[in-house]
Amino acid sequence: MAKSDTDAGAPARPEPRLPKGFRDIEAAEIRQQLDMLAKIRSVYERYGFEPLETPTFEYTDALGKFLPDQERPNAGVFSVQDDDEQWMSLRYDLTAPLARYVAQNFDKLPKPFRRYATGSVYRNEKPGPGRFRQFTQFDADTVGSESVAADAEMCMLAADTLEALGIARGDYVIKVNNRKIIDGVLVSIGLDGDQNSNKRLTVLRAIDKLDKFTWEEVVKLLGDGRKDISGDVTPGAGLNTTQIYDLKRYLEFAGRIAQVYFPDAARFVEAAPELAEQQYNEVRKGLSFLGQNDLIKSGIDELILIHRLCCSQGYVKFANDEKPEAIRPDPSIVRGLEYYTGPVFEAELTFPVTGDDGQPVRFGSVGGGGRYDDLVARFTGQKVPATGFSIGVSRLQAALAVLGRTETTATHGPVVVLVMDKAELAQYQKLTQSLRSAGIRAEMYLGSSGMKAQMKYADKRGSPVVVIQGSDERAKGEVTLKDLIEGAKAAAAIKDNKEWKESRPAQVAVKEKHLVEEVRKILARHA
Amino acid sequence: MAKSDTDAGAPARPEPRLPKGFRDIEAAEIRQQLDMLAKIRSVYERYGFEPLETPTFEYTDALGKFLPDQERPNAGVFSVQDDDEQWMSLRYDLTAPLARYVAQNFDKLPKPFRRYATGSVYRNEKPGPGRFRQFTQFDADTVGSESVAADAEMCMLAADTLEALGIARGDYVIKVNNRKIIDGVLVSIGLDGDQNSNKRLTVLRAIDKLDKFTWEEVVKLLGDGRKDISGDVTPGAGLNTTQIYDLKRYLEFAGRIAQVYFPDAARFVEAAPELAEQQYNEVRKGLSFLGQNDLIKSGIDELILIHRLCCSQGYVKFANDEKPEAIRPDPSIVRGLEYYTGPVFEAELTFPVTGDDGQPVRFGSVGGGGRYDDLVARFTGQKVPATGFSIGVSRLQAALAVLGRTETTATHGPVVVLVMDKAELAQYQKLTQSLRSAGIRAEMYLGSSGMKAQMKYADKRGSPVVVIQGSDERAKGEVTLKDLIEGAKAAAAIKDNKEWKESRPAQVAVKEKHLVEEVRKILARHA
Repeated sequence: MAKSDTDAGAPARPEPRLPKGFRDIEAAEIRQQLDMLAKIRSVYERYGFEPLETPTFEYTDALGKFLPDQERPNAGVFSVQDDDEQWMSLRYDLTAPLARYVAQNFDKLPKPFRRYATGSVYRNEKPGPGRFRQFTQFDADTVGSESVAADAEMCMLAADTLEALGIARGDYVIKVNNRKIIDGVLVSIGLDGDQNSNKRLTVLRAIDKLDKFTWEEVVKLLGDGRKDISGDVTPGAGLNTTQIYDLKRYLEFAGRIAQVYFPDAARFVEAAPELAEQQYNEVRKGLSFLGQNDLIKSGIDELILIHRLCCSQGYVKFANDEKPEAIRPDPSIVRGLEYYTGPVFEAELTFPVTGDDGQPVRFGSVGGGGRYDDLVARFTGQKVPATGFSIGVSRLQAALAVLGRTETTATHGPVVVLVMDKAELAQYQKLTQSLRSAGIRAEMYLGSSGMKAQMKYADKRGSPVVVIQGSDERAKGEVTLKDLIEGAKAAAAIKDNKEWKESRPAQVAVKEKHLVEEVRKILARHA
Repeated sequence: MAKSDTDAGAPARPEPRLPKGFRDIEAAEIRQQLDMLAKIRSVYERYGFEPLETPTFEYTDALGKFLPDQERPNAGVFSVQDDDEQWMSLRYDLTAPLARYVAQNFDKLPKPFRRYATGSVYRNEKPGPGRFRQFTQFDADTVGSESVAADAEMCMLAADTLEALGIARGDYVIKVNNRKIIDGVLVSIGLDGDQNSNKRLTVLRAIDKLDKFTWEEVVKLLGDGRKDISGDVTPGAGLNTTQIYDLKRYLEFAGRIAQVYFPDAARFVEAAPELAEQQYNEVRKGLSFLGQNDLIKSGIDELILIHRLCCSQGYVKFANDEKPEAIRPDPSIVRGLEYYTGPVFEAELTFPVTGDDGQPVRFGSVGGGGRYDDLVARFTGQKVPATGFSIGVSRLQAALAVLGRTETTATHGPVVVLVMDKAELAQYQKLTQSLRSAGIRAEMYLGSSGMKAQMKYADKRGSPVVVIQGSDERAKGEVTLKDLIEGAKAAAAIKDNKEWKESRPAQVAVKEKHLVEEVRKILARHA
């Protein structure tokens, strides 16, 4: 006889609970997620990406450390030491494992290598409301292409994916920027060289917070540091007032340019290319105001090329056009991850929603990505340019749920075959199996309770029909079908017993051999 | 400018490699697995189970320690310590998390609670050929039912699932036993009481090895211990010669009974129940030969009831019947996990296969399960009877691959739009997007190589068609479609240039506005 810890009398009973930042996902949400994943997969497939699955664990040195949350142990990742003393970590995204895979299999892969991947990723971060330590991403990446067309395509892929999920054009926007521009600006305010690399990173992350914090709070992160409500202090980048002022000027300027010249260029791109070119030149002039180095120049040119490509594919439209814009340059976008080297993207839901508490709900970004030309070179020393986009599936699903945009084929519970006589289990099982063989979701009641509890169980399971066969019915070769959906409606509508009897009965006796077709009829009625 | 570790000149470049026991899964295998998972899901749904997803991590105390491989650190699981010093472990199966979930949500759940789950599980075990530390399981469980009908149903579910995956009746068998019988036998040879619980477990695991080891090797595990080829010693159960002899007698006897009386009973169950009853009585007499305690008695009765139920649903057939048996009692089945308390099941593929090396291939079990009535009680103290079945998805898929039984809708690579002129990216992108909008898998070539390399790339991707538009064609508003499948066939069949010209060309010029319909025609030809 197997003994549990409890029987052995040794340790106290463990409390049934989950570690903080982890959660169970129940039936309705799983069905929605399956539906979402299938839709995303179909768009990614249409774009020509091939699936790849890497394991949960990687060697820690292979993953590298590119996460924002450096202050916590293990730099934000979960790590264990293997028997041979080597450290392994749980993947924190799907990009770092891809870089390892490409480096390992470089010779056999087609170039460019285009793959998609989905799965759980893990962050050893401070959990908070709606912030989990395990969540699902869905990525597409093109590795081995330095073409800006590959980046533009990522923006189109993002737009098409959100639309495939039922989010209309205009209810989302894919914001695009280029790390080279902002890196160039940082150089121009004196943050160049290896000795400033940590400082640059801290500045990027501070700017990345602009969608959550006010400018005043971001200034603290750019300067001496910021204390949050709990008293925890985030160290700042240590910029001086002039540097902070220059940054602010860049951001304001950049925002205005994005709002004025890009839309104007878009208007002309097809009809009057030379007018569009004039507008792009205004962008060039405006954005290089704060610095004239090569980084800024090439960053602006790439951003313009992406914009032009997206325009020509109908992803940017304005004013009197039938569709609003799907993709928009936004020079305040930086992305928090360290490894980006060029264009960066962020997908945001834009339409206003009121939460349960009557307050407007703000969704953060539901996806993002960018170009990371140095990740594979970490292994091989050989530069392999790459770009990718990642959907935050869990976060997007939560947003869709708030928006009431999660659709699933409403799944009824199973048909429940009641057990009226325990000596006849084989007979009830046979009724159940005949339904299943016909492809109908069905189960025999497996508990030990009586008729009333069985009906309650069927109700709780959302069962559309119960099948009843007492000894009388068995003798006549019949079964009684009770239509629970019809029954519930009738019960709600009917005022007295007389009316009940005259109305269409939710209960019907049928020949056992007609069980499948009669159940099908009822299910069809509720389909 | 983002800097990689390499640029910074600091650490040596990491080697791109995976930790031992983990692996990448590539496109073809992923497509097969998606197909398998969908089929399994559909059978489990038909049986009325609801999906549930628990996270990768659980508190270590909530998981418990039920794994066979106790000698290694952390008793076979991967564990990390959380910030608050509590230990968390990666789930080693899907059953222990289910027990935690049920204990935590008991009041709100329908009883019985019937759920299915799929996902990766992790074992911190010594990896070996074909033995991985991360693999996929697909489980169904009924919690809150003590009815043996729930166990019988698990066997039927297992049989239906294997058949849904294309494994014909007769090419697999679901073996059933009852832990109570073997536990009773252990009591009868003197291994009763808490002080012998470890000994009992060691004996069970030794018997569990009978499908891999000879009896002589198992005797070492029952006795003083066994040294393997590498010199590692597995400690034995320390049984004396009489005890080992009694165990052997039980196993031989049990095997003979399974081969004689159960089949005879099956023959009569429907037509002549009293004759079947006689055979079942022979089973009772035979199996209780070595012990007469209550455990053995109730174990045998449950085994007979499961057999009877499976017979009555057509899962056990013999001799002159059209279908061979799907479910068979086998008293040597014990299952390695500690938590089982009653009926246990094991799914095996039975047909002979020759491996690549000309040797017959032996598949171990591809699934299993059983009754575990004490797992929820570990948390609540309240007994909640439960039973379940688990498919080893990764192992089953490997077996199906060897058998050549993995079917996937052959997926062509994407249509590749060649880039003949880099100044016209927007135009090539437009051709690509028009195909995608029509639901056709397509991509624009994103590398930087010339025509020949682009054709090679399309070939490597398994592309069925390439789209070519040079400046002449653009001027005429045309594109050239090259049918790569037809082209390859033609190239293989054609002997000289003359014949090539007379044969049907694999290349055709069409109007750009007819691109989608012309590509569709070619794809339809190869569907």
